[in-house]
Amino acid sequence: MKNILDRNQNKADEVRKILSSQKVIMVNIISSPGAGKTTLLERTCEKLASRFRIGVIEGDITTDRDAQRLKKYNIPIVVINTEGGCHLDSHSISKVLDSFDLASLDVLFVENVGNLICPSQFDLGETFKLAVVSTTEGDDKPAKYPMLFREARAIILNKTDLIPYTNFSRQNFITDLRNINGSVPLLEVSCTKGDGLNEWFNWISGQIDPPATSVASPLKGG
Amino acid sequence: MKNILDRNQNKADEVRKILSSQKVIMVNIISSPGAGKTTLLERTCEKLASRFRIGVIEGDITTDRDAQRLKKYNIPIVVINTEGGCHLDSHSISKVLDSFDLASLDVLFVENVGNLICPSQFDLGETFKLAVVSTTEGDDKPAKYPMLFREARAIILNKTDLIPYTNFSRQNFITDLRNINGSVPLLEVSCTKGDGLNEWFNWISGQIDPPATSVASPLKGG
Repeated sequence: MKNILDRNQNKADEVRKILSSQKVIMVNIISSPGAGKTTLLERTCEKLASRFRIGVIEGDITTDRDAQRLKKYNIPIVVINTEGGCHLDSHSISKVLDSFDLASLDVLFVENVGNLICPSQFDLGETFKLAVVSTTEGDDKPAKYPMLFREARAIILNKTDLIPYTNFSRQNFITDLRNINGSVPLLEVSCTKGDGLNEWFNWISGQIDPPATSVASPLKGG
Repeated sequence: MKNILDRNQNKADEVRKILSSQKVIMVNIISSPGAGKTTLLERTCEKLASRFRIGVIEGDITTDRDAQRLKKYNIPIVVINTEGGCHLDSHSISKVLDSFDLASLDVLFVENVGNLICPSQFDLGETFKLAVVSTTEGDDKPAKYPMLFREARAIILNKTDLIPYTNFSRQNFITDLRNINGSVPLLEVSCTKGDGLNEWFNWISGQIDPPATSVASPLKGG
């Protein structure tokens, strides 16, 4: 296992170097199956594809269903089918990087395989990890799957519209999350209803195009 | 990987032999995080702990929260913390079997780590796998995670009470499921509201104590 992780780390460092040289940020999106990664990407493309040049890598065990849902945004998309593998690794990312014209991208979203565990352990060369967790999974996920909540640069809490119909306790969720990670931004959204998405759009825009860079490169993303 | 799976299979065969000699059935419950495995076990203990002698193995990365929720039923429970591991394996099961008085059990439920993928690949020596999937995860799970839906002896579709508030299509779910597994029983339930649970209680009772055995051993479970 240590060997596998070491080899993965070396390749991730290579990927990170390539992306950095091309000024592309890569966001590794991790969640349980069905927490709403693809719907978040749909909303994000609708709102931001005219402002930023977006590419997507879709990681799935099998099928290209998530990629099909994103086709309508006319962005470059590459599907990686892991054929049973429970996570993407840096080698699989490295192999498909050439499929993108990186000089023409601002951000590359990677939708990892639906799994809260192994994807947190494999660096893909991303700029940062983004955790997506949904209220319907229960309020105990940060306590039970701490690694992702420790490592992510932001946490999206999705499906807030369903809270009234479940026994999800916002207070319990936040207490557990803050025990694990005291400072990580928490963005509460409903990707189907639209609640809270402006805060997400602002946050991710600031990551892609930080304020200082905006001043220096006023034409970026135009 | 092949070596790991081979060694796992050998130990699983040993576990299966031991359980069979003690007439204990073992149910390997697999789902995404938060699909409702523990709530299903709570309802099952409430209804059936007076009829069958139930034991539980709780698999979790960390914490004993699920086990705490089951303590009130006064059944034997053993927690296996995988410390980052994304699934249980037959070696971890074998190590804790001695903690149970197997001669005094009818059924041993194993709540696997919350993960739709790797747990499907590791035989624990179970009598059968049980898949739990919730409507809030979306209707595309059988197509995207086919292995579990192929291997399970029954599928629990949980959180049916939330269908009106989501875009879950029962028809799409069933079409995809039947493409993968034409004959597996599908039990539609709401573990929090109670809908459909009688069908589950009947089904699992029939697995623990098949009709023919009932006639031969009228005192079983009394």
